[in-house]
Formats: sequence, C-alpha cells, structure tokens
Amino acid sequence: QEQQPSQHTPWHLDLQKGLQYTTADSTSSLSFRFRIQNRADFETNSGKDLGLASAGGYVKRLRLRTSGHLLSKKLTYSLQLGFANGDTDDKDSDREQIIRDAVLFYQFTPALKVGFGQTKLPGNRQRVISSGEQQFVDRSIVNATFTIDRDFGLFAFYENQVGNVPLRLQAALSTGDGRNALPKEGSGAAYTGRVEILPLGEFTMDGDYFEGDWVREQSPKLAVGVTFSENKKAYRTGGQIGQSFAGFTDLRSAMADLHFKYRGWATLHEWINRRADTMIFPAENEGDPLFVYAGQGYNGQVSYQFPNHFELAGRYAVITPETQIRHLAPQTKHYTLAANYYLRWHRIKLQSDLTYQTEKDLTNLTGSRNNWILRLQMELGI
Amino acid sequence: QEQQPSQHTPWHLDLQKGLQYTTADSTSSLSFRFRIQNRADFETNSGKDLGLASAGGYVKRLRLRTSGHLLSKKLTYSLQLGFANGDTDDKDSDREQIIRDAVLFYQFTPALKVGFGQTKLPGNRQRVISSGEQQFVDRSIVNATFTIDRDFGLFAFYENQVGNVPLRLQAALSTGDGRNALPKEGSGAAYTGRVEILPLGEFTMDGDYFEGDWVREQSPKLAVGVTFSENKKAYRTGGQIGQSFAGFTDLRSAMADLHFKYRGWATLHEWINRRADTMIFPAENEGDPLFVYAGQGYNGQVSYQFPNHFELAGRYAVITPETQIRHLAPQTKHYTLAANYYLRWHRIKLQSDLTYQTEKDLTNLTGSRNNWILRLQMELGI
Amino acid sequence: QEQQPSQHTPWHLDLQKGLQYTTADSTSSLSFRFRIQNRADFETNSGKDLGLASAGGYVKRLRLRTSGHLLSKKLTYSLQLGFANGDTDDKDSDREQIIRDAVLFYQFTPALKVGFGQTKLPGNRQRVISSGEQQFVDRSIVNATFTIDRDFGLFAFYENQVGNVPLRLQAALSTGDGRNALPKEGSGAAYTGRVEILPLGEFTMDGDYFEGDWVREQSPKLAVGVTFSENKKAYRTGGQIGQSFAGFTDLRSAMADLHFKYRGWATLHEWINRRADTMIFPAENEGDPLFVYAGQGYNGQVSYQFPNHFELAGRYAVITPETQIRHLAPQTKHYTLAANYYLRWHRIKLQSDLTYQTEKDLTNLTGSRNNWILRLQMELGI
Repeated sequence: QEQQPSQHTPWHLDLQKGLQYTTADSTSSLSFRFRIQNRADFETNSGKDLGLASAGGYVKRLRLRTSGHLLSKKLTYSLQLGFANGDTDDKDSDREQIIRDAVLFYQFTPALKVGFGQTKLPGNRQRVISSGEQQFVDRSIVNATFTIDRDFGLFAFYENQVGNVPLRLQAALSTGDGRNALPKEGSGAAYTGRVEILPLGEFTMDGDYFEGDWVREQSPKLAVGVTFSENKKAYRTGGQIGQSFAGFTDLRSAMADLHFKYRGWATLHEWINRRADTMIFPAENEGDPLFVYAGQGYNGQVSYQFPNHFELAGRYAVITPETQIRHLAPQTKHYTLAANYYLRWHRIKLQSDLTYQTEKDLTNLTGSRNNWILRLQMELGI
Repeated sequence: QEQQPSQHTPWHLDLQKGLQYTTADSTSSLSFRFRIQNRADFETNSGKDLGLASAGGYVKRLRLRTSGHLLSKKLTYSLQLGFANGDTDDKDSDREQIIRDAVLFYQFTPALKVGFGQTKLPGNRQRVISSGEQQFVDRSIVNATFTIDRDFGLFAFYENQVGNVPLRLQAALSTGDGRNALPKEGSGAAYTGRVEILPLGEFTMDGDYFEGDWVREQSPKLAVGVTFSENKKAYRTGGQIGQSFAGFTDLRSAMADLHFKYRGWATLHEWINRRADTMIFPAENEGDPLFVYAGQGYNGQVSYQFPNHFELAGRYAVITPETQIRHLAPQTKHYTLAANYYLRWHRIKLQSDLTYQTEKDLTNLTGSRNNWILRLQMELGI
Repeated sequence: QEQQPSQHTPWHLDLQKGLQYTTADSTSSLSFRFRIQNRADFETNSGKDLGLASAGGYVKRLRLRTSGHLLSKKLTYSLQLGFANGDTDDKDSDREQIIRDAVLFYQFTPALKVGFGQTKLPGNRQRVISSGEQQFVDRSIVNATFTIDRDFGLFAFYENQVGNVPLRLQAALSTGDGRNALPKEGSGAAYTGRVEILPLGEFTMDGDYFEGDWVREQSPKLAVGVTFSENKKAYRTGGQIGQSFAGFTDLRSAMADLHFKYRGWATLHEWINRRADTMIFPAENEGDPLFVYAGQGYNGQVSYQFPNHFELAGRYAVITPETQIRHLAPQTKHYTLAANYYLRWHRIKLQSDLTYQTEKDLTNLTGSRNNWILRLQMELGI
C-alpha cells in the first residue's frame, strides 16, 4: 500500500489488487494486474546419471488481469488472459485459448454471491490458490493429474459464521468441458460442490488462499475443505482438461484438503480420488490409446518463512493409477525441497526447487525410473 | 459520468468512452475499454420435440479497446482486440485473428475525415452498430449471412447539413479480403459507398448507432441509410468473411436501412441483396462444394423500453437464396422475442431472446425443419 | 512531456515512455504503451514491367507494452505483446507466438545490470533499434536474413566510461531457439557478446538507439558496435528464427556496425557474416530442402532531417550467399529512397520508401530478376 489517500486518490498501487482506480463516488473500482513467471528447468537422465536429459528456459506464465466492481460493490467481475505457450491449452486444443477468467458476480445478500461465466471450479485447494501465490515453483503432480480446473457455468458462493467459525459453501453447474469449449452434442454437464471450514477463524490477508505464512500468523489458523464433483458424459481425459477422445465417460472426483499456518510455519495437505466409468479409449489415428488417469493422489507440504521472508519448504506428492490403467501410467512420487525469497509478498519473488522423481511401473512388466529436476523461477507482477 | 471535474481531472470513467485519460493541455486523450458477453444457448430438436439438441455456455465476446486523440483532436485512432473463440475467425482462417480495429483518422476539415487501417466498412446498419449495443442477444441472420464486415484500406467520412438535415457520405477503398488478410495474387479490391440521412435531426447520444430507445427521445428521430459495395475478384464465400475457395468471383451488395426512435419506441429495418458472378466452387478436398450465399434478406425489429430501462422487443428476419444455390442453402426465417434489462446503458445489461426458426428447402426435394432457440446473456464492460 | 508536475502528478504522458504512473514515494513506476503500423505495399512485375504483381494493405504491427521499476529503481521489467500476423512467428511455428519481451533486470551496481527472461539479444544495430524507431518502412534485408533476434536466457549489461568515452559490454547466455521455444532434446545454447563504444560521447535522448537525427545533434556523435554470437546445435534455419529442420548445426555470426549523427544528418552501416557447419537439410515432406542462409550482408543508410522533421533517406543493402547454397538462394540488392514526416518523434509519423530490388543467381544457371517495391506506412502510438 504505497499511498496514503488524504482526499480522494483515484489511483493506488495495491499489494494484492494491483493498480486500482476508484471513482470519486466509490460506486466503481477497477484493478489492473500483470505478472510473469520466467523459469529455467534442468532434468537429469536418472537418479544416478546426473547428465542433463533436458535443459530449457521459457516464459511459463504471462498474465493480464482486471477485476473490480461497477455500479455498486455488489456487482463484481474478473477477467484474466494468459499468453504463454503452456497457458493456452495449445497441446490439447486446436486453438490458442487465451481467455482464462471472464466472470460476473452479483452479491444477492451479504452471505450469498452468484456468478455466471468462466472461472475456476471450487476444486482442490492448490488449484484455487493462484499459480502466482504458490510456494513451490509450480503446483504438484496431484493437481496436474486430478484438478478439475476451470469451466463455464453458474457459480454460487455462500459464506457465513457458525458460532465463530467461518463456513463457506460453494457450488457450480458447468459445461464440464473446460475453458472456451464449444458445445459438443452428447456431452453432459458437471456438478461441483465444496465446503470450507475455518475452525480457528479467518486467516490474515485471506491467507488460506496463498501458500506460505508470509504474514506470520500470531494465532494458529486452519482451513479444511472438501469437494465433490461429477462430470457427466465427459469427452476429455481430465474432464475439463486433457485430450479429446471419441465417446463419453462419467467422471467422479472427491477431494479433501487441510491448510494450517502459525508463526511462519505452514502446512498444506490434499487428497484426491478420481473414478471413471470407462478409462481407456482407442486413439483416433494409430498411436497410443487415450486414457483417463483414474486413481488417487496425495500432496503434503510444510514450510517455514523467516521474518526476512526467506522461506524453506518440503513436499511429498504421490499419484497412483487404478489397476485397469497400470499398463499405461506409472505410479509417480515427488520428493521436493524449495528455497524462496519474497521481495514483495507473492508479487515479486525468487523461487527454486529440487525434486527427486520416481516413476514405478506397478505391473512390474517394465522397469522403474527415477531422476532429478531442478527449477529456478523469478516472478514479477503487480 | 461519475466525476465532476473541478480543476483538471486527468481520469474519468465515461458512460460511453470508458476509462479516459486527458492530458492537462487537452491535446491528447486516451480511452480504455473492455467488455465481455457471457452467454448460454439452448436449441430444441424441432418445433414440436422440445428435447434439447444442444445446450452450451461460453464467453461469446471478450474485447479490449483503446481510442482517442493524440497531438490534436484532428488525429484520432481506434484499436480493438477480440479474444473469444468465435471472434478470431478461427473457423475460416488458419490463424487466430485477434486484431479487429487498428485505424487512424485525420479530420481534414470539420466535414471531412479520412482514415487508414482496418475497421468496419460502412455497411448495413446492424453491422455498424457495435455488437455491444444490440438489443437482441446477437445480430440477425441477415447480418450473419450478408454483412461486408471489416476490411483494411482507406476510409472517407463526409458529414454536413442540408438545411436542418444531417447528411453523411461514407466511402471505402479496401482490400476486399477481410481482417488481417495477406495479399493474394489475383485478388481485387472492394469499393463501398454509403449515404445516411437524418431527416428529423441528430439522435440524442448518437442514438442511430445503438439499438433501443434508451434515452426515450422526446421528439421523433429517423435515420435512413443506403450502401453499395462491389468486391472485385473475391476469394472468400462472403468476400471479407467466410471460407476461402480456389478462384475468384465479383460480389455486389446493395443495402438499405431505416432506424426510428420516439418515446421509448424504436424500430429498425434493413434489406440486403447480394449478387455473385459465380456462386459455386468445388471443395479443395472431397466434401461439399463451397458457395456464395447470393440472395436477399430482410430484418425488422420493434421495441419498447420502459422508463426503468426494462425492454421488450420483437424481430422478424428472413434470408432467401438465389435459385442457383437452393439445393445448397435453405430459406431461413427467424421469429424472435427479447426481454432486456439495462443496468448501465448498453455497458451492463441482461438479455434474453427466444427464436422460432424455420429452414425451408425451396427446391422441395428434401423436407423443411424448424425448432426453438433460447439464449441468455449478460454483458459487462466499461 | 505534456505535464509539468507541481506536486506529485501520478500520471504523465511521456514522449518516449508512454503513459506513465509513478507512486507517491517514487519506489515504483509503470509505463504503458501501444503502437500500430498500418502499411500498404505495391510490387511491380519487374524493373521494366510496372504492372502490379501484388498490392496489399495490412496491420504490420500492433504492439502493447509495459515497462518500469518496482520496489526500487534497481528492479526493472519489460513486457511486450505483438498481435499482428507477421509478428507472431505464425509462418514458422505451429502456434501464435504473441509474447515478444518478458524480462526482469536487476541493477547490481551502477555499471552492471543482469537480466533474466525473453528479450532481444545484443545483436546487430538495426535489430536492437526498435521496429518503431526505424527511418525506413522496415529494417533491411540484411537484418531480415541474418538477425539473431530474440531469445530466452541470462543477459548482462556493463556500462562504463573510459576517459570520456562511454563503453558498453553486453553478453547473453540463451537457449538459441528463439521466442517461446520449447526445449528440444539435443539442442544447444547460444553465446552472444557485444561491445559498443561511443568515442564522441553519449547521443542526445539515447539517439544511438533510434534512426534519423530527429534531435539535430549540435556536436557530432558516433557509436561503433561489434557482436559475436555462436549458436550451438541449432535446429532452425536462422537459429532463433526460421523453419525447423531435422538435425542440428552450429551457427556463428559476426556483426559490426557504425552509427553517426550530426546536425540533422545521420548514417548507419552494418556488416554481418554468418557461418554454418551444415547448410542444407532435407525437407521433412517432399518439397524444397531447407537451408541456412550462410553468407554476408552489408546495409548502409544516410539521411537528412530538416528542422520541421521532414526527412529524406537513402539505403543500399546487399546479401550474398555462400557458394554451397547459391543454387538455392540468389544474391539480393536493395536500392531504396525514403521520405518521412515525423509528427511526434517516432511515435506518430508518416513513412514511404521506394526500392529497386535485384535478385541475381550467382550460379548463372537461371536468369536474374529485378522489380520495384513501393511501401507507405503510418505509425501511431504512445
């Protein structure tokens, strides 16, 4: 918060909201943000052969955002565009999908807000925490494999207190086909519900929605979340994400998560289980069949942030496929250590992590492999 | 108009122009706008079978704009980018065409303005009215089929009074190949002229260029327009839009329109006729031949807007193909009712319309079909 | 500089930096820019047959930029997006590459700045001069053929005085594969170094980095630059740009340039030599083989700008292929005259140039050809 408004200061560079314009009558307020993540990756041939299998540098994310309220604080909006290669669904879509968020919300009562448009589903904790507010260089393999990502539809958010305990109920009715999907005949909708409970009260600065205890909570804070999502007649391997196959399958995801912070310490855990009626689909052309990665995953993280905002963190993540697809997908485990330095909260930071990855063939037909992955990242934005 | 400038107020949130910056000496002024249209569509199997043939939700439009003047009020510019799938010509182009407008204008005399760049041709009324200032969820099938859309070239606008009657002459010399077209050897140019007459004087707030009588004109207002356009050696089925075929044809379009508003009532009518030297072109690969939809269309709308800015509107639209292509294209009619609520002029509004569509095979070889289409839309922008 | 800040003026429209926001404590400053180049091209059939082989108009460039400093003047960033067709590498990439610059810099000492991200390599003079600050309608064929363009990696800039002579050393360690490249197994890195010397002192307004003597230097100014770049195991015909081939080759580029300005006169010369271990690669499908244009180029320009900012300029440019590829590429020469009018420095200008082009087959197996190219351009931006 760089500016202390004496009279009306129309513009303000806010730590969390970016460059913010407010009309003199306060009925409207517009925030503008950008951020980039520049990254270098190094992957070894194996756990023992430290020769580099690949090395690269790239712009991982370049995002432009605007959000705010118009006419009254009850009517809010959020728009986000992403321009980097990995951000545009270019591997799985025949078009560059630049639009990430385009959603309007109306606050019907102090407790109830309803939205219409495209944004994140109320899924697993690490997904709903922004990619710009992670404490590792990127989200875990559990999220990458099982997230229900973004979708277009109707969103409802209900927030209230039970005694002193904040309680949030979230629900979404959405297309189930992901960002910028065109209607496909025969595809069904997705139904998602999520409950969040904060038994020890609200986090400082909404800290349940960013990783690491940057604020060094002076009393312990806990958030618990549970999500169920059913995606009827999905045609992509991850429902909202992944390659498209011919045919449909129902997908069911169950998710639970726990986020705790106290005096610089933070720990985050999430469990996800995904089931599918049909898991394997023949490839459209010759080639490997497409499959839904049904199975379960667990991601656990613990970190300590020093008062000077240097942070150390550890992560253990594992994903395990269902029996039916074990000839197609290994069980993967990640053991990761991270060191970060926050110059301006999550907006400007240096990040690094080192991962030992094991991929185990659970059918024991082929061997397993393991290797090391080093990642360095600078994030800058407003 | 949220702000009453006492001294110099550099920034201003304008109802029509968006977030506007003006230099202290007023020689330059820059406006910034964004807008989204979030839409849900439901289409029945037929007029009698109300089962859903398709249902979907998507971001129909996400636009960023800047316009203004630099150095002096005589030198103006307009830039517009569109990021939504249907907005990037992705069906008919092998690239995402994000640029919509990129044009400079110079006001040579108070009556004469000349432009260079890419923008809308002076075509049919409903095309030159912004997609963000429509009173139905989208433009009619007449526009979709026959519009001459945008092009790159030279644009001249002459505006004067004959007695008390404003008269506008508009002309364009353009590539004829549409947005962001690359030069193609053998392709010719397009020549477009348009006349607009306002026999009852100027509309309030330039109301001939937005639909619905939001301002509730206190005296009757009428705009009449006529356009002729010739596109020499075109290689796309719609000249500036549509799929590319091998070969060329000349296209000629004649258009007339009428726009009237008084005390909340508004009515808009347009007639378009398109002719082509050659209408049918063989497909490049096996598949249906490509054809130019030559023929005629009529769209008529009438609406009433209550003082609280709730609006009801009806539309009848019909497109009829020429004899030579009747085995390839049906005659289509739309009967549509709309209900809208304007929260902040056309910038923030709720829209819905219900259409009964008939598609009649004029060759009588195959049957006809009809069905219902329901569309819901929220638009928000500045 | 439209505004004279009395107290703190947060916003300012700067001639070079665009629309600039500065926080009240001056720790952060953000600049926002856009610019468009609208162009018309006309090419004759030959030097004698002045019939038009092609004629076209298009948006050549539409760029959005932000740059500035955050937290302190030591931490700077630069982001640039390009949306026009020819700007997105769409011919040589299977995706639209919208990101041009995304780079962070930290000023470790007053003399040393280090950057991480994607931006221009310290290559030839005409490349490192912005496309928006050229005095011809576009850069020469020497740059088009031999530039090392942009890349992702580490950048170091060292700047000091030797006596009164500014000396700049620049180095880059980069992927060698160009903008937004994905890591490719087997591809090596690129190593680039550049020295710039300004024996007569700094140019006014950093005039060594824009073409034409707009400021009419009152004492003579000279910049001399030399670049060496080695791109190990490159897989594109130009290293950082061009089509991808199967296999790899090392590329070595040597570049020298000279830029002089005095009292409205300016002259710019650059010489580039490129070598490749392997020059010819078989096409992936049937078709012409791909080749690296190894060889040398020279571009020389001289211009005079009148006090009213009307400018005349002449250019001679030649590119000559190595013997091994002379059956695939001609020797090309351009003789060009330009006339420009600057309304607001390089930000708003009218440009035109007329080129006589000769393409000579050095193997003498086929004939040579020559023709005329006329280009008109308007540039506008902030």
